[in-house]
Order: sequence, then C-alpha cells, then structure tokens
Amino acid sequence: MSNQQPLNDVTVSSAESRLASVVEGIGRVDTLDLDRARVRMDSLTKPVGSMGRLEQVAVQVAGIQGTERPSITKPRLIVCVGDHGVVAQGVAAYPSDVTRTMAFVIGQNLSAVCQLAAASGVEVKAYDVGMAGSRELIEGVLGVRIADGTADMTQGPAMTREQAALAVLVGVDAVTQAVSDGVDLVAIGEMGIGNSTAAAALTAAYTAAPVADCVGAGAGADPSQLARKIEAITRALQVNEVSTQDGLGTLAAVGGLEIAMMAGVVMGAALNRIPVVTDGYIAGSGVLAAASISPDALDYVIFSHRSAEPGHEYMYRYLNAEPLLALDLRLGEGTGAVLAIPLIDGACRVLANMLTFEEAGIG
Amino acid sequence: MSNQQPLNDVTVSSAESRLASVVEGIGRVDTLDLDRARVRMDSLTKPVGSMGRLEQVAVQVAGIQGTERPSITKPRLIVCVGDHGVVAQGVAAYPSDVTRTMAFVIGQNLSAVCQLAAASGVEVKAYDVGMAGSRELIEGVLGVRIADGTADMTQGPAMTREQAALAVLVGVDAVTQAVSDGVDLVAIGEMGIGNSTAAAALTAAYTAAPVADCVGAGAGADPSQLARKIEAITRALQVNEVSTQDGLGTLAAVGGLEIAMMAGVVMGAALNRIPVVTDGYIAGSGVLAAASISPDALDYVIFSHRSAEPGHEYMYRYLNAEPLLALDLRLGEGTGAVLAIPLIDGACRVLANMLTFEEAGIG
Repeated sequence: MSNQQPLNDVTVSSAESRLASVVEGIGRVDTLDLDRARVRMDSLTKPVGSMGRLEQVAVQVAGIQGTERPSITKPRLIVCVGDHGVVAQGVAAYPSDVTRTMAFVIGQNLSAVCQLAAASGVEVKAYDVGMAGSRELIEGVLGVRIADGTADMTQGPAMTREQAALAVLVGVDAVTQAVSDGVDLVAIGEMGIGNSTAAAALTAAYTAAPVADCVGAGAGADPSQLARKIEAITRALQVNEVSTQDGLGTLAAVGGLEIAMMAGVVMGAALNRIPVVTDGYIAGSGVLAAASISPDALDYVIFSHRSAEPGHEYMYRYLNAEPLLALDLRLGEGTGAVLAIPLIDGACRVLANMLTFEEAGIG
Repeated sequence: MSNQQPLNDVTVSSAESRLASVVEGIGRVDTLDLDRARVRMDSLTKPVGSMGRLEQVAVQVAGIQGTERPSITKPRLIVCVGDHGVVAQGVAAYPSDVTRTMAFVIGQNLSAVCQLAAASGVEVKAYDVGMAGSRELIEGVLGVRIADGTADMTQGPAMTREQAALAVLVGVDAVTQAVSDGVDLVAIGEMGIGNSTAAAALTAAYTAAPVADCVGAGAGADPSQLARKIEAITRALQVNEVSTQDGLGTLAAVGGLEIAMMAGVVMGAALNRIPVVTDGYIAGSGVLAAASISPDALDYVIFSHRSAEPGHEYMYRYLNAEPLLALDLRLGEGTGAVLAIPLIDGACRVLANMLTFEEAGIG
C-alpha cells in the first residue's frame, strides 16, 4: 500500500477504536438460558403467570446471569452529570449553574434519589463527566470530566466524535469498576440542566419521530421555553449531520456528555453481562444511543418507569418495551430506576427461592 | 322500662357492640396536618410535583402520623387465611385443601410473598381466621379461627353477623398487637380458595355494579367455572339480604372470614392512626367492607396495585382511588402491597430528609 492511499482507520481515533472493541465484546443473552429460567418460573408453586410482568424481569435477569436462580446482591446507581451549550437558546427552566448545585446536593447524599436509594438499599455514585464552569472537585462526586459542558448544538455538533467516544468509555469503565467492587446490577441516572432538549433531539434523530412529539416541559419549561426548545432542536437537526446509521456521530452531534456516559454504562453492563436499569426520558435517550451503537446491548436493559415526558411513551413504543412503573415522575437523577430495584430483586427471589411443584412433592 | 319492651341493643351481640366502639374511635386524618406536609413537599429542592404520585403518598403518611417528616421503620404484612363454602358450586380452579397447603408454604417462609417481603424488608405474619378442615396448628401460622370456613353463600349467609364481627375484631386486634410490637405500617394480604367469588359478590353488593363486571378468572378459573361463578354470585345476592346501608350484614352474607379480618385490619390501622397498604381485588373487597362500616377508615388506606382482575378497576373507580403499581399480578397473599412498601418508604424519606430551599439557603 502506498502512503497516498487513505486508510479507513487513520480517521478513527483511539477512543473510537477502543469503543469498537467494546462493541465487539458484547453478545446477546443466551436464549437457552432464558428458556430454562422460563421453565422454572412456570413450574413454581403458584398459578402460571400470576406474578404478572415481574416474571419476565426475573427470567431476563436469570438469562443475563446464566442461572435459573438469579439474585441481586449489590446494586449501584451511576449518576452522570453534565452541562449543555444549548441552554444559551433559552430552552431550560433553570440556568446551568443549578447543575453544579444539584451535583453538590447529590454528593451530600441529600437529593431525592439519595433518599429513595436509602429506602431501596442502593449505593449511589455520581460522576462529573462534563459540567460547565469550575473544575474544583465536589465532595462525593467523582471528577472524570471530558469537556466543560457541550457546545451549543444549534451552531454545530455538541461534541466531537472523540469526546463522545471518550464519554461513552467513561461509562463502560464505571461498570468495570463497579463489577470489580462486587456490584451485580447497575442503574443509570442523570443531572444536567438542558438535557431534556438533548434527549428530545436524540429521540427525534434515532427514531425519526417528529420533533414536536419528542418535546415536553422537562424540569418545568414554560410555553415560550417549550417553543424555543422545539425551534432549537429543529435547527440542531438541520445544522448537524445525524443518521440512524451513525450511532456515535448522532450522539456527538445532538447528545450530551452525561447521556454518552449513560450509553456507555449500558454497553459496559452488556459487556460485563450484568443487568442495567434505565430511568426516565433522558436516561432513555442514552439507551437509544447504546442501542444504535450496539443493538445487542438492549438485552441487558430493564426499563423502570414511564415518566411524565410525552416523548417517553414514544421511545417505549419504538423500543417495543414496557416499563415496570408509571408514577408521573419527572425528576431524573435515577429516581425511577432506584424505585424499580426492589421489584427486580423481589422478582429474582421468587424465581430463585420458591419451590417448584416437584420440589414441594405436589402434583 | 318494662321487660316486654324490646331494647335495641339486646339484639346486638357483644362482638357487634365492641365493633361499634372501634368505629366510634376512628377519626379522619387532620386536614391541617395534610396541608402542612403539602407545603413542605412543595418547598423541597426539586421541581414542584416532580416526584409525581409519590408526593401524595408521602403527604398522606405525614398526615396520618401528624408530622411533616414521616417515616416507615417497621412494616408488617398481615396475611389472612380462610375458606369458602361457595367452592361447592364449582367456582374455583383449586379445591379448598390447597388453602391449607399454601398456608403451610407461607408458614415455611417459602411462598411468593415471603420472597418479595424479604426483598422489601417486610415482616410477614399469617393468621388462620377461618380455614376449613383440620384445626391442627400450622407452624408459622397463628391460629385465631372463628369458624371452619364459611357456609355456602348460595344457600344462605356465609357467616352469622356475630362471626363476621368477630373476624373483623381479630383484624383490629392484630393491628393493636402489631403497634405494640413497634410496627408503624401494616399491609393486608390473603389466601383462600374461592375468595375471588366472595370478593366479586361484595363488590357487586357494595358498589351496585353488575355481577358480570365484577367477575374474573381469579387464580385460574376456566370459562365454565367463570359462568358458575357468575351464577353463584347472582344466586347469593338473591338469597341473602345485602344492602349498602348494612356494611356488616353484607359482609356476613356474601363475604369471607379472611375478608372480614382484612376489613378489621383496615379499621385497626385507622384506630391506631397508622397507614395500611391494601393489595389486590380480594383485599380491596375488605377495604370496601371497612369503608361501608367506617367510611373514615379510608383516609388511612394506601392502594398498592391494580391486579389482573377486571373488577379491580371498577373498585378503584368507585373508591376514586389510583394505585401505585399495575403489574398484572394475580397472586394475592399481599404480593402487590409488599412491592409498594419500598416506594412508600422512599416517598416518606424524600419528604422527611430532603432540604427545603430555605434550609439549603437557596432562593
């Protein structure tokens, strides 16, 4: 080969090539393991199907764990925090510095999700993967910042491909660390003023849904902010190249650093063959990104709740998934994911510990 | 007064008169306490309303406890077990002796609800308030039997008024015992072959709903059993005197001993001013009975889930209530109630432990 000939992988950054090897390492859940778990579920001393939708969750975890007796012993919530250049377009109800305030509150174990996590026995770890402003560390928040917030997606890509890939890899690595700490289930949550705009843009880009169907009030946008949100997303989708064929490029163009990290947590969970519980609309956009980059990763995702964001329902229809809870939450942070964990734990215990008719000597 | 003159209370049994004093002791939750809790919820460092339906639950518990900082420290599930004479009409998918088998499984801590309770940190206590057959005690099940199952409601009342009142009082006393053990939230669950027939009859009687709207497959009735179920309930409602004006009489006529006990747990919770979490359709019929006897008791009820029984939705519309979960459960035992407890716990922790904007020195 001559020097002149352009090599394809010369244009691929080292982060992207590491990401490619992660994708390579992700395999689907074994259908034989799922079948075995389903057989055991159906032979337990209870009417067949009487545990409703919890049965499917228990079978999914069993399949992921490759056992008929699944268990969740150490769940961890990974809260990904980042800021968004698009807030310059007046799309959010709060200014960007509220992200830092809330990260501080999470680090102090005082936020909403921290209370729910205490009730559910879930450990919380927060990561600053891309807040804007001061780089001073916040107590209780791990500093793994890839950039000081994203660029304004209405003017060009929110991130470079390299930044997006790096943020995804931070998520993958957070799971590898978790697994080495003994964690056997991860959940994703987020904090980031303006990130419901990025989530809506990603949803429109990945699912080809009309922008207006993807947009809701987020943390409390008023009608004029809502109109600006729709306008900003529409412009971002014109200015940037997005494509359902280019998962990473689309994520870089209209996503966010914390959304990329959540996509990475999903892929890291799949790589490590542990279940990952997703949260609301913004976390869901991270799942869409992960599914676009690595479709097999979807096998490892448990959908916790349907939020009050109207686009969330659209996302569920696109993914052909149904969440466990529908509580009209619109708080983020992983609140819905954490609430679902005791249900998942309970479902696993039913499958693992109840007697079958044969074990009970009945029938 | 002469001996000849009939005294009203001569016809009232001592159980009924004790029950009347229980009803007398039940008061509504103080609206001022509810208002105070709502004000605190709205001033927490999160978008107003962003915890969705959990906010209402936390405010309800706060009102019941008379504090702005509610907490659940020791929840107990009370599983009420009884048998039903109406199974003679071929309404159930299983024979009555399965009730005893399942009570044994619950006593051994191996049933579905026991697994979920372990996941949720809930203590389980089972009571034989009216199984048919052997009176030999089952390990792990408290024997408080009022009668050996109910009579066949298609031939006359399932219970005497005295039996129904006694079973209610067993439930009241179970809560008083629980409270003296430090329990601060009770949940109700049940086991009893044939009891979805009694639940449907009670629902029809208390809400004046058409019988066919109240009847579902229970633990797995086939179409011919379903037809017999409708026929049996229709006959029972003709044979017996039922009236929305006579809560106890209706409960006695077409109810069940375990349903009466659950009604008693609801009233006992209201009497002791602690929250009570109800379960599926059959537990719900106990709530209807309690509400008919003592409407104020409803203030203390938290509705956990919507079961797969079609009549359950009807019941919720009648009570103008919306449950937290909808998982298509149809197992009973208190499974849905137990699953909701971590959500209630979490909601209380949010209200109790998050900072208000004022406490955080913001705004």
